Amino acid sequence: MGRYELEYPRDATNLIKRHGERGSYALEKIHSLINSAQILHVSFNPPDSPFPVILPMIGQMGSFDRPSASLGDPLDVYLHGYVSARIFNTGRAAGSQGMPVCVAASHVDGLVLALSAFNHSYNYRSAVLFGHATIVDDEEEKLFAMQLITDSVVPGRWQNTRLPPTRAEMQSTSILRVKIASGSAKIHEGSAVDDKHDLANEDALNSIWTGVVPVYTAMGSPLPGPHNRVELPEYASEFLDQFNQESKEHSIAAAKKE
Amino acid sequence: MGRYELEYPRDATNLIKRHGERGSYALEKIHSLINSAQILHVSFNPPDSPFPVILPMIGQMGSFDRPSASLGDPLDVYLHGYVSARIFNTGRAAGSQGMPVCVAASHVDGLVLALSAFNHSYNYRSAVLFGHATIVDDEEEKLFAMQLITDSVVPGRWQNTRLPPTRAEMQSTSILRVKIASGSAKIHEGSAVDDKHDLANEDALNSIWTGVVPVYTAMGSPLPGPHNRVELPEYASEFLDQFNQESKEHSIAAAKKE
Repeated sequence: MGRYELEYPRDATNLIKRHGERGSYALEKIHSLINSAQILHVSFNPPDSPFPVILPMIGQMGSFDRPSASLGDPLDVYLHGYVSARIFNTGRAAGSQGMPVCVAASHVDGLVLALSAFNHSYNYRSAVLFGHATIVDDEEEKLFAMQLITDSVVPGRWQNTRLPPTRAEMQSTSILRVKIASGSAKIHEGSAVDDKHDLANEDALNSIWTGVVPVYTAMGSPLPGPHNRVELPEYASEFLDQFNQESKEHSIAAAKKE
Repeated sequence: MGRYELEYPRDATNLIKRHGERGSYALEKIHSLINSAQILHVSFNPPDSPFPVILPMIGQMGSFDRPSASLGDPLDVYLHGYVSARIFNTGRAAGSQGMPVCVAASHVDGLVLALSAFNHSYNYRSAVLFGHATIVDDEEEKLFAMQLITDSVVPGRWQNTRLPPTRAEMQSTSILRVKIASGSAKIHEGSAVDDKHDLANEDALNSIWTGVVPVYTAMGSPLPGPHNRVELPEYASEFLDQFNQESKEHSIAAAKKE
């Protein structure tokens, strides 16, 4: 719809210096990598530690003020999961501007095996966002984020759970909202690239296998829990089939990229 | 062999506060989670940025001084991959003690779907290490780390590449060594756990599917590169078969855990 694709401005924080040609600053690309990651890694600096801390969390991008916003629009990251007392308190102490965080999403798409070990690499898609995290206090916004995140695990799941949430559930759930300051993505695709001198090395060429082993995330057959009474519903089975097909196909397409 | 299992001491940095029963401080468990992760997330604080930065990197644990050390022994993390000028310079500026970093490894093993959205979770295995990173200057140690890391991608690969490394390869490669200060792991397994009041809710039980969707990493059929002349060697095909079998089986076993 838009006449141009929005990009995060480049600065010292988000600039891709090495292999700059693999970099992207487009909101849509970065946001879609974040949204399609099953797990995000979130880093922050607790006030009492010499080390930055990384927590694995589940999250999703969205706009509470404009729920119809598309992936290429300015969005916030909503994070849920293991929100420790520490990140919680750090977030609160940071006040309204929020706690500086980095959010990373990484997809491994293949093992790239070259003649020389030093030319080995991965096919991958990675994105990072930098921003300020605050705790969401508003109940409506919390609900918005919980639905967003639940539906990111299995689309349509929220409407197919026991609703509405209880008071205890709402109170015991904490959601972080990250206002984005900048971000970037880095993508590597294709087959093995060897140095000229290695491609002239007949011994190496006649003995070393080169190419790509596609790597992808797969979902196995769903295992009903001890209290389950129902057949796997269509919204879930269709999602799993589509996920498995796209996940595998993507890794192969990445390997075949020229 | 040992009479006891070594653990990292618990302190404010590595203590698992929430769901402490899921935590582990055993070196062997933490190190094996790091070593089996295809990608590690490494966080550090660049001197010129208000935000911590996360880089996806490839790494592996080992001991250069005692190569025969086992997984449960004190080890260093060797990191390779996208080492930007920034992390490089930060590492050098930090001097001999090194740059404080956090290294995270996360494996998603399943989507746990409960009656209430608020009882949804993942089966997962995650580990973090905290330590000080320095650049490896010694050529022998660099070689040791390169072999360690190459063989972690496909066991036996190092000996089956073009050797020895050229002077240019050694010079253009940078390896970070992280001396570990502490670490911890957190693991979640099992099927959906619902609240009592939900398990007494006949409407919910008769309409909502509950259980686990196993999630695992899979390797596809290797795609030979444009210059490849040889059949896929046994060391690679055997590794891929074993990886695929263990990866899938582990996700199912995690779901079935009581």
